[in-house]
Amino acid sequence: MNTFGQLLRVTTFGESHGPAIGCVVDGCPPGIEIAPADFAPDLARRATGKSRHVSARHEDDAVEILSGVHEGRTTGTPVALLVRNTDARGKDYDAIAGQFRPGHADYTYWQKYGTRDPRGGGRSSARETTMRVAAAVIAKKWLAQRHGVHVRGYLAQLGEVLPRACDWAAVEANPFFWPDAAQVPELESYMDALRKSGDSVGARVTVVATGVPPGWGEPVYGKLDAEIAAAMMSINAVKGVEIGDGFASVMQRGSVHRDQATPDGFLSNHAGGILGGISSGQQLLVSVAFKPTSSLRLPARGVDIEGKAVEVVTTGRHDPCVGIRATPICEAMLALVLMDQALRHRAQCGDVGEVSPRIPPQA
Amino acid sequence: MNTFGQLLRVTTFGESHGPAIGCVVDGCPPGIEIAPADFAPDLARRATGKSRHVSARHEDDAVEILSGVHEGRTTGTPVALLVRNTDARGKDYDAIAGQFRPGHADYTYWQKYGTRDPRGGGRSSARETTMRVAAAVIAKKWLAQRHGVHVRGYLAQLGEVLPRACDWAAVEANPFFWPDAAQVPELESYMDALRKSGDSVGARVTVVATGVPPGWGEPVYGKLDAEIAAAMMSINAVKGVEIGDGFASVMQRGSVHRDQATPDGFLSNHAGGILGGISSGQQLLVSVAFKPTSSLRLPARGVDIEGKAVEVVTTGRHDPCVGIRATPICEAMLALVLMDQALRHRAQCGDVGEVSPRIPPQA
Amino acid sequence: MNTFGQLLRVTTFGESHGPAIGCVVDGCPPGIEIAPADFAPDLARRATGKSRHVSARHEDDAVEILSGVHEGRTTGTPVALLVRNTDARGKDYDAIAGQFRPGHADYTYWQKYGTRDPRGGGRSSARETTMRVAAAVIAKKWLAQRHGVHVRGYLAQLGEVLPRACDWAAVEANPFFWPDAAQVPELESYMDALRKSGDSVGARVTVVATGVPPGWGEPVYGKLDAEIAAAMMSINAVKGVEIGDGFASVMQRGSVHRDQATPDGFLSNHAGGILGGISSGQQLLVSVAFKPTSSLRLPARGVDIEGKAVEVVTTGRHDPCVGIRATPICEAMLALVLMDQALRHRAQCGDVGEVSPRIPPQA
Amino acid sequence: MNTFGQLLRVTTFGESHGPAIGCVVDGCPPGIEIAPADFAPDLARRATGKSRHVSARHEDDAVEILSGVHEGRTTGTPVALLVRNTDARGKDYDAIAGQFRPGHADYTYWQKYGTRDPRGGGRSSARETTMRVAAAVIAKKWLAQRHGVHVRGYLAQLGEVLPRACDWAAVEANPFFWPDAAQVPELESYMDALRKSGDSVGARVTVVATGVPPGWGEPVYGKLDAEIAAAMMSINAVKGVEIGDGFASVMQRGSVHRDQATPDGFLSNHAGGILGGISSGQQLLVSVAFKPTSSLRLPARGVDIEGKAVEVVTTGRHDPCVGIRATPICEAMLALVLMDQALRHRAQCGDVGEVSPRIPPQA
Repeated sequence: MNTFGQLLRVTTFGESHGPAIGCVVDGCPPGIEIAPADFAPDLARRATGKSRHVSARHEDDAVEILSGVHEGRTTGTPVALLVRNTDARGKDYDAIAGQFRPGHADYTYWQKYGTRDPRGGGRSSARETTMRVAAAVIAKKWLAQRHGVHVRGYLAQLGEVLPRACDWAAVEANPFFWPDAAQVPELESYMDALRKSGDSVGARVTVVATGVPPGWGEPVYGKLDAEIAAAMMSINAVKGVEIGDGFASVMQRGSVHRDQATPDGFLSNHAGGILGGISSGQQLLVSVAFKPTSSLRLPARGVDIEGKAVEVVTTGRHDPCVGIRATPICEAMLALVLMDQALRHRAQCGDVGEVSPRIPPQA
Repeated sequence: MNTFGQLLRVTTFGESHGPAIGCVVDGCPPGIEIAPADFAPDLARRATGKSRHVSARHEDDAVEILSGVHEGRTTGTPVALLVRNTDARGKDYDAIAGQFRPGHADYTYWQKYGTRDPRGGGRSSARETTMRVAAAVIAKKWLAQRHGVHVRGYLAQLGEVLPRACDWAAVEANPFFWPDAAQVPELESYMDALRKSGDSVGARVTVVATGVPPGWGEPVYGKLDAEIAAAMMSINAVKGVEIGDGFASVMQRGSVHRDQATPDGFLSNHAGGILGGISSGQQLLVSVAFKPTSSLRLPARGVDIEGKAVEVVTTGRHDPCVGIRATPICEAMLALVLMDQALRHRAQCGDVGEVSPRIPPQA
Repeated sequence: MNTFGQLLRVTTFGESHGPAIGCVVDGCPPGIEIAPADFAPDLARRATGKSRHVSARHEDDAVEILSGVHEGRTTGTPVALLVRNTDARGKDYDAIAGQFRPGHADYTYWQKYGTRDPRGGGRSSARETTMRVAAAVIAKKWLAQRHGVHVRGYLAQLGEVLPRACDWAAVEANPFFWPDAAQVPELESYMDALRKSGDSVGARVTVVATGVPPGWGEPVYGKLDAEIAAAMMSINAVKGVEIGDGFASVMQRGSVHRDQATPDGFLSNHAGGILGGISSGQQLLVSVAFKPTSSLRLPARGVDIEGKAVEVVTTGRHDPCVGIRATPICEAMLALVLMDQALRHRAQCGDVGEVSPRIPPQA
Repeated sequence: MNTFGQLLRVTTFGESHGPAIGCVVDGCPPGIEIAPADFAPDLARRATGKSRHVSARHEDDAVEILSGVHEGRTTGTPVALLVRNTDARGKDYDAIAGQFRPGHADYTYWQKYGTRDPRGGGRSSARETTMRVAAAVIAKKWLAQRHGVHVRGYLAQLGEVLPRACDWAAVEANPFFWPDAAQVPELESYMDALRKSGDSVGARVTVVATGVPPGWGEPVYGKLDAEIAAAMMSINAVKGVEIGDGFASVMQRGSVHRDQATPDGFLSNHAGGILGGISSGQQLLVSVAFKPTSSLRLPARGVDIEGKAVEVVTTGRHDPCVGIRATPICEAMLALVLMDQALRHRAQCGDVGEVSPRIPPQA
């Protein structure tokens, strides 16, 4: 199933080393201003080849708008976006076409379909997330212009390293999306050592949405948190999702966790902005765990497509920490979920005006 | 959206203190043997009123089969199940009908719909999960009989307490679903003290599926792990979901995390049985975080429906740790996801026979 | 698939001779006033046992509201409705349990599922349409109150008999929903003769919606006319659907068919109120063909479940013309489609206010 | 909603005069052989510019496969197809950009979205059907190879002209898909006179599927006939759909209509191969009414976007009878519905083997 969303429906296609990747964004309200240049900033944030800490593959990621936009605005018909692959090196993968790389989707695609496209992971490559980020550019615009909702994120953990400060101004000023400028040299050394060792490491990304009004989310199987969880878990290499305090809630007392409120605002936000699957008007707080990349030049024990034992060594161009480039992808998925839920809320509850009383978010 | 699943579609209805709760299970293959008595064991495992550690509400949870079964077998038409509410005490809630209980869905339903059913949390009550467990009885049966897949779970953490052993035989022999019989007295004391304090605590539930063949799960937006994440997060009070090593992956090295394999089997299962969103044939490992109950007799600062500050005290019958009864609910959601994905896999890949080579799960 | 609609989702369940039939209406806006008594008028219009021209089965069709309504208004959670079957005579069908009745779904259900519930046609019985009519009571109310949209229908042909006048006042004053009071005696004789002969006959029903604003319907695969066609064709015994001039368009010239317009209004309505799959603001005109009932006491050649030739004679209680009771069912399906499309339109195009210029419908 | 199908999901995009049109076919089983050349024959059958009786627009309709195919076979990931528009003449439409053409979607798109792409009808153009035909090439292949199902069609009426014979060999040998070779000169004269008059005319297309096994189709809202009706009605200019005897059933007696059977086969096929929404194993017979084209050089009374009365004269390149090129489009929609239903049947009923007794189709 390559379509995401119920009313804002994003269908992506394309393989890592095929001729192109693309998406169709269906259900867009008419009148949203969109130009090819709008996609460049977020695609650049996600792109490979920008620092020595990420994969060296270089793609222009130039977006062609094929439909759905007339005279610079969406028309209500499906917006199709196309990005040509220009730096695919299929031959890098000849060596491993007959092997299943440990920790990869090679074996599971093979088992599911009885075949696979081995070039660069084919459809299972993170290259696919390019189009999620592209589609979310439209969602971010609409959310900001129509609802004042803003989505942003940062790298909240890199292996053992935790931020010592959380400064939004720092995040976009370093290649790690790290919220503490002072730690950047430390991260550089960390990554250099890691790359030298031939190993990889996991990471945690936190994404936040501000301005979300209370009322978005559909009980009981289309809950806002449930759809965020699915959205994040659908990103390559994700192994865990938390809303608000997440797993820390396990050890909390109810008297602490429950966010008390006064007419002047909520007094805490342990819930991360969602109660009963519906937004509370507080900040949405989502945290995502990325596993370490499995493509390593360190040899591993594996099996080939004949069923024989092999030693697998992955060359090619890979990220030693996929989490580093994941911040814009997590933002994208959160934005797509929010826009979809906003449209669904409008469909069912458009009759209901603004409801009193409104409790302001925690100051 | 009160329907769950794409091909096995479970629609639930009913409020905590309405006349009845029920579900419609659509898409069931024909020929599954089902009798009213089949539902009793799992509903009893989930039920309130079974020990002093859970809510005292007593419901018979007698299931009436309204359709879809003829001469003891499913016919392929929708299976409708009905459970009458018999111990609803709406008047317990009169006091709080005009207030928003902190940490509850009261405020968010009010904001979404401009109205709410305040009796027992209405639709947001965990009473709704009764029907998930009932629907999953069918899924568990089909999975076991057709595919040899078994789903089971246990309480993996209660507040600060962690199991010291993991013995499946112990799990069903205590009211906590705890895998270490020796610790049960400790848990009893822990819960007694908690109840006396008027407070509540969170918990962690782990669910495991064995026998899942490789190949279930749909890239890229219907991934097995993504749908499990949504399923778990749709359960009341859940704040986090992990697959395999989950958040522990953040600090792991790739050389450790990637599950190496030989023709005799996988050598580890950090991935929790899913790679690229598709089952690998290993055990599925899912871990879920439950927040502490927000309904406490300890007073909290809140807001009433006029927007005025109030002190909220919750009486009624509540669980001091909702996680205690959550094991069968988590099992249910995993079983529903698996059956749905099994049907989806059969639809698309039924042409493909069993694929070689098969790597056995870790011994 | 027993769910109808994308945003207003109606799931029905129940067999003709099972304990009950019911439905879940999900996606209802909150605040719609609904009481059990609201369902009675339309269910009575559809009911059997009302005249000698329809089946003699007598059901009370008393609707129990199980959820989704609090203090007389919808809350936004799923509305579940239940009707107990009280006059099912399963034993009428013992004789045919081992045979496939010609022209019935007996054989096709058997082939699909390898089993079937033979009592009264099981799930394939028109009894299921009771819940469509019940669900549509909510849709009709919302459409009328919020949008001024009204849906009504009449019997436009009974066998060879065509109406000589079209008077809405006559329609509800006779058991045929016939629009010409003067012809009712003729129809009575026609039906008496038919019943005496042991045979049955087909019919045509026309349904009309007034007040539909321009803009409802989703290109290109959720077109208003496409969804109406599916809705009508999903009714038992329907073999054809027309929008506007329908099959008469085949012989028309474009200069005649295209509905010209002036600022004072459209000059004709050959299109039946839909252009490009979107409502034009004109009356919606839909015409539906019903085949003659296949359950006859006249013997037919058939096959039994052993594959042997048999002579099939159907006793039981059947309608000699199913079209007679079909008018409220066709209305129901049109109302459900319209409410669903209204919600979908609001979701995507709620940003767009009323658009100028508006061309009035044909006077 | 620009996606068609539940398990075989076709998403199309593109405007008549935009840079390209395309589609994504998701849910394809792996292993289907597909090459760019496979699309040429059916696209040529549908194409404009092939005879003087259809629009003179000339498009190469060269299909680029962007994803989902590796080494000549589908991999199970989404198949994306792209066709560049090469002969779009946007300026032909400058004159009518400020007018609503009578009988067109101009006005309804404008009302829905508050905007529209006026060039060639934008998204509402029949150009979109190119991608339906392309997608269905895959479906036709799979249906034929896996199930021996074949879909074909012919023009069953052109204005007042009816075929005097029905010879499949004739159909592909004339530009009208007419089943009687002897009548072709008559049709040529008919169309020449029509074109000279500046007017247009409607048509009827009949499509037939052979080899469909009994059991496809999902009661009660995913019936095979209901989905065929929606599929056909979603084609531009369609105003009516019939299954089997269709509207002729209205005047039939049940003793005639019900298809009797013996162990050697059905004795008739009035039902058109569908009973209770499920295929019976007989030929599927579907008939579709096309309205006459509304784009005429004959002036019509209309309204402009300022709301003023205007005289509308359409130049540009148009078909005087859209039905002439519609046969492959109707075939395509039937093939897509059948493949989708085949996959859905396999999902739910894959457990059930071939069921006895099988009644052969009418000889």
